[in-house]
Amino acid sequence: MTISAFDHPLLSGLVGDEAVAQAVSFEAELRAMLDFEAALARAEAAEGLIPAEAADAIAAVCSSFEPDMASLAAGTQRDGMVVPDLVRQLRKAVGEPNAAHVHFGSTSQDVIDTALMLRLKPLLADFQGRLEALASALSRLADAEGDREIMGRTRMQRALPIRLGDRIATWLAPLESHLGRLTKMTPELLALQFGGPVGNRASLGDKGDVVAARLAAELGLESANPVWHATRDRIAELAGWLSLVTGSLGKMGQDLAIMAQNEIGEVRFKTGGGSSAMAHKSNPVAAETLVALARFNATQISGMHHALIHETERSGAAWTLEWMILPQMMAATGGALRIAAGMLDDLEFPDPG
Amino acid sequence: MTISAFDHPLLSGLVGDEAVAQAVSFEAELRAMLDFEAALARAEAAEGLIPAEAADAIAAVCSSFEPDMASLAAGTQRDGMVVPDLVRQLRKAVGEPNAAHVHFGSTSQDVIDTALMLRLKPLLADFQGRLEALASALSRLADAEGDREIMGRTRMQRALPIRLGDRIATWLAPLESHLGRLTKMTPELLALQFGGPVGNRASLGDKGDVVAARLAAELGLESANPVWHATRDRIAELAGWLSLVTGSLGKMGQDLAIMAQNEIGEVRFKTGGGSSAMAHKSNPVAAETLVALARFNATQISGMHHALIHETERSGAAWTLEWMILPQMMAATGGALRIAAGMLDDLEFPDPG
Amino acid sequence: MTISAFDHPLLSGLVGDEAVAQAVSFEAELRAMLDFEAALARAEAAEGLIPAEAADAIAAVCSSFEPDMASLAAGTQRDGMVVPDLVRQLRKAVGEPNAAHVHFGSTSQDVIDTALMLRLKPLLADFQGRLEALASALSRLADAEGDREIMGRTRMQRALPIRLGDRIATWLAPLESHLGRLTKMTPELLALQFGGPVGNRASLGDKGDVVAARLAAELGLESANPVWHATRDRIAELAGWLSLVTGSLGKMGQDLAIMAQNEIGEVRFKTGGGSSAMAHKSNPVAAETLVALARFNATQISGMHHALIHETERSGAAWTLEWMILPQMMAATGGALRIAAGMLDDLEFPDPG
Amino acid sequence: MTISAFDHPLLSGLVGDEAVAQAVSFEAELRAMLDFEAALARAEAAEGLIPAEAADAIAAVCSSFEPDMASLAAGTQRDGMVVPDLVRQLRKAVGEPNAAHVHFGSTSQDVIDTALMLRLKPLLADFQGRLEALASALSRLADAEGDREIMGRTRMQRALPIRLGDRIATWLAPLESHLGRLTKMTPELLALQFGGPVGNRASLGDKGDVVAARLAAELGLESANPVWHATRDRIAELAGWLSLVTGSLGKMGQDLAIMAQNEIGEVRFKTGGGSSAMAHKSNPVAAETLVALARFNATQISGMHHALIHETERSGAAWTLEWMILPQMMAATGGALRIAAGMLDDLEFPDPG
Repeated sequence: MTISAFDHPLLSGLVGDEAVAQAVSFEAELRAMLDFEAALARAEAAEGLIPAEAADAIAAVCSSFEPDMASLAAGTQRDGMVVPDLVRQLRKAVGEPNAAHVHFGSTSQDVIDTALMLRLKPLLADFQGRLEALASALSRLADAEGDREIMGRTRMQRALPIRLGDRIATWLAPLESHLGRLTKMTPELLALQFGGPVGNRASLGDKGDVVAARLAAELGLESANPVWHATRDRIAELAGWLSLVTGSLGKMGQDLAIMAQNEIGEVRFKTGGGSSAMAHKSNPVAAETLVALARFNATQISGMHHALIHETERSGAAWTLEWMILPQMMAATGGALRIAAGMLDDLEFPDPG
Repeated sequence: MTISAFDHPLLSGLVGDEAVAQAVSFEAELRAMLDFEAALARAEAAEGLIPAEAADAIAAVCSSFEPDMASLAAGTQRDGMVVPDLVRQLRKAVGEPNAAHVHFGSTSQDVIDTALMLRLKPLLADFQGRLEALASALSRLADAEGDREIMGRTRMQRALPIRLGDRIATWLAPLESHLGRLTKMTPELLALQFGGPVGNRASLGDKGDVVAARLAAELGLESANPVWHATRDRIAELAGWLSLVTGSLGKMGQDLAIMAQNEIGEVRFKTGGGSSAMAHKSNPVAAETLVALARFNATQISGMHHALIHETERSGAAWTLEWMILPQMMAATGGALRIAAGMLDDLEFPDPG
Repeated sequence: MTISAFDHPLLSGLVGDEAVAQAVSFEAELRAMLDFEAALARAEAAEGLIPAEAADAIAAVCSSFEPDMASLAAGTQRDGMVVPDLVRQLRKAVGEPNAAHVHFGSTSQDVIDTALMLRLKPLLADFQGRLEALASALSRLADAEGDREIMGRTRMQRALPIRLGDRIATWLAPLESHLGRLTKMTPELLALQFGGPVGNRASLGDKGDVVAARLAAELGLESANPVWHATRDRIAELAGWLSLVTGSLGKMGQDLAIMAQNEIGEVRFKTGGGSSAMAHKSNPVAAETLVALARFNATQISGMHHALIHETERSGAAWTLEWMILPQMMAATGGALRIAAGMLDDLEFPDPG
Repeated sequence: MTISAFDHPLLSGLVGDEAVAQAVSFEAELRAMLDFEAALARAEAAEGLIPAEAADAIAAVCSSFEPDMASLAAGTQRDGMVVPDLVRQLRKAVGEPNAAHVHFGSTSQDVIDTALMLRLKPLLADFQGRLEALASALSRLADAEGDREIMGRTRMQRALPIRLGDRIATWLAPLESHLGRLTKMTPELLALQFGGPVGNRASLGDKGDVVAARLAAELGLESANPVWHATRDRIAELAGWLSLVTGSLGKMGQDLAIMAQNEIGEVRFKTGGGSSAMAHKSNPVAAETLVALARFNATQISGMHHALIHETERSGAAWTLEWMILPQMMAATGGALRIAAGMLDDLEFPDPG
């Protein structure tokens, strides 16, 4: 049983994306959380905060830990998040005398936020590659078909003729801007979160910052400072970028749906969707789905900005809201990139004249 | 692998709801779609539009049909919806000479929209029952504890003392209003959609309206007219009602989170959530989750209103957007009702004086 | 200098509405607030809570009071609302010995919320009349032109021919539903708010409810109970209704923009908008503006649902958010009703054949 | 009569900002549009596209032109924008033989979009200065009061003590990030829009790009390419930045409203707002207004992302939606910056011990 279209046995193939599904899955999140706990133990051992043997024992357990899912589920419902019960299970698995060294000086939010970043890093690299490929495909399309004359349209009315290449340029330019924005955004975005219960790394005495630096380096994250448990602008900025991408692809979809109108016929979807009642239809399903995904993310971005109002050191309300929205925005973006790439191969232009 | 919190192996227990998960599941949708096709065949046979034998054959197949899911998935991705391939499979299963009588005069949207209504009907009855129970629980709480003095607070500052019962009344009154709204909304909401490819029931000649009336009666839906394939106000109104419910419960959650602040101590969560780092905490997880669910639905309602701009006889873009949002709003409402009911049992009031 | 398009010297004529501008103006709000204070004094005098002479004096002052606007502005910035300074000015104008009887037992929110209802009542009646006129105009259009054949379109592709009357029916039916919803919503909506500082009418002893009943009757409001200072569902419901109206009109606008595409030519805007560069254009400005207004309200409705999370007895944050959004939603709805009415007179249908 | 709180005679002082009001005013827009037309004429004359005398005549008229506002209003209502009638008036004022050289090769969108950028440039510089000043003020506050112990709070419950400086750091760090984002965003954002009727600069033959470069240089804009009439990502990105700023200030406001709760008393608003009924109140009006402004922009950002779906060469619907939303987001950001600066001077910390 599924509730979201992205998890639906059929609709996920229409709107979703496999790479995002993997990145967002609990399986991947669990591995990332365990990587965090292992790396934390190693960093703390390197600074003499916990015994080296403890770090080895913790890392060994984390490398292959399979939690009791029923217990995790009960814990999540009670505590509002998975970490307290997961740490309890880990401590039990590590056993004495090292149990108390598990998760030392850390807090749930460190684990969950950092585990998000660990999965975002490869996913954003994947998105970057797909955007680059899409930009290349649009360039090739412009090279191959750009000299065709189509009608420039303003306010839904015929204006003056333009080259098809002119319109393709309006699809391509934003993608290049989004690639530039990604490059600018990533270094500050992909940061370790490590602050302990109230964000001041107090349990680690004067070793807080050096442990954080070791931890970030070990995990391949860009930065260890400042703590961002309660300052969620990087998350809202990421969400904005995701919605910019789907918005630009939605504009391309809307344009193509208009160009494919029968009376206009400036493009045709070779394998357009069928109807249960009208055999002659060739529906621009991909184009319309791009519009739907753009409007979906344009809706969601609002919630991510509301989540900026994250009171004091941790807001259960604002943080939970992020969990409910961000993964779907990632999925919508992945879906739109997948659909756009496939759609460009499916376009057919009429014979001139 | 899941993307939505409502489908997540752990988070679904925090924010989701089992009754909605069942109502929204593809399994339930499939049964509802098959019920529609069977009832349609019976209604058409009763009017002599298709042979009685065809109706029997179709109903027999529909009663236990198990589709080829891989084919449905491929069809959904191609056509933008499940129905064309499902009808193709049904026709094959029904076989000659009755295959052509399957889905006669109907269209994909008839099937999907009506299948939604068939599942909404019991779900809204369930929500009604839960709202009534919650209202009763609040009344009992007011009876038991209402005379306690608490501090009335305006603009986050102490104002003047009030009775606890005064504040409970602000939680209870909107629930009663929502029950009234539900009663007013339901008759027009729970309507058959049956219009055929372009909404005019043209394939049925002069039998369109009578078949529609039979079909609505058979399916237990309130109304057969007018067709609403392209007029989605009933859906947006439903979404608004769902968000009104979560908003009111979110206000109760926000109030209780404030009343449970340690320095205020007007209420305590008996089994409040724990922390991975601070054993002394008793977090008002249920209250905060109610706020998160309220803000989630307050975000989503916007997309449902954008979907009102449903161009001509069918908008793939606007309709797909509904599919991506409405089930989650239902789930959020179900989750909030579940959480609120449990939370009231978990409150502990301090000894006076 | 203006910031909002609704107040802009030029754009207000494009998107705005004069009737709403009057209803929402501070001038009208001031009169409504003074009416409240006068009626409150009369109701309290009738119950012996204040002297009859005081009520007369207060009513006399309120009937023609012109406040010191600079002082009101400073007070609003300091207090977050206008009422404290207005009451101070009123008390001074009433003078001794009756000054203390001004605003007795009331609070700022009583004044502002009730003043909203007093202006909503005629405005909603105006909207009702306009919706009825629009429905009539659509009926006449269907009578006059409904038998024309146009192309039914699904997913932006030609499907099967329909009557123009079929499509007009999809514009008309929701308007009739909105009229029905308005009738159902109004009695509970148009209620007095009167609760005093923390909503319990405590200053009035056992006369609170009877004063409230007198006050509601005097002001022509439907109901005096319960207090709703902190339960804003009626406001969010109203906002939802406004956005349903603009959404349905936006669908009509989107349809007409498509029908008016040059290649389709199923309708023409007689006085379509011009271009600064292309003399031949006849742009469907009214249709596009309807779409913009629909998306505007679809955006705003989200904020009104967030404002449901109105903590304890008064949330300055949530209430201020309402003030920033609701008047614009009213203006957008008024604007859309005005535009739609004008647009129907501006449509030209091509000669058949 | 005003509809928006930002234009309201009283509320504008609560939520608005004078600098934005000036930048957004029609008076400023008119001057910017006239500057565009004058600079365009000069650039075209420099390239020999129009006579030098024409450029001089046009510039002379533009330097002091006072349009017939009634005619502009009628034109805006008819054409959906001000430019066609403004150009008509300008041509009449310039007179023969140079009238036809006015606005040569340009289109309405060039004028309006570029006029926005011309006003954004100083406004964003102003915002930058205010953010820097606010960051400095927070640094000073941290220096002066940062060593105070306050209670770290997670999920609305007491967690562990922190320094006041730790919490101030969570207010300061995002402001520094926003300054960095502004620096990264500005060069691509502040670009000329110049494309002519359908964006291809076709009327200028092979001189299109060089005229654009001259025009951008003359107007002090960063870039002349590519045209962005139909690719609105820069606008949505700007809107996102505005909402990030208000969101971070809203978090500070929410924190301070909690710290100022009477039972907590970690801070006091020296000149907190008063109540019409409770003389003892000192309400954290500024803090609550910051929350309201944050939620306002978090609501609006959604509409700006919907406006990315800007079909073909010009969407009247999507563009009009921008006009209705963006100025208010600018005003909300200006208001929040103004309020935050004033609020920091109004905080009072209790005597330790």
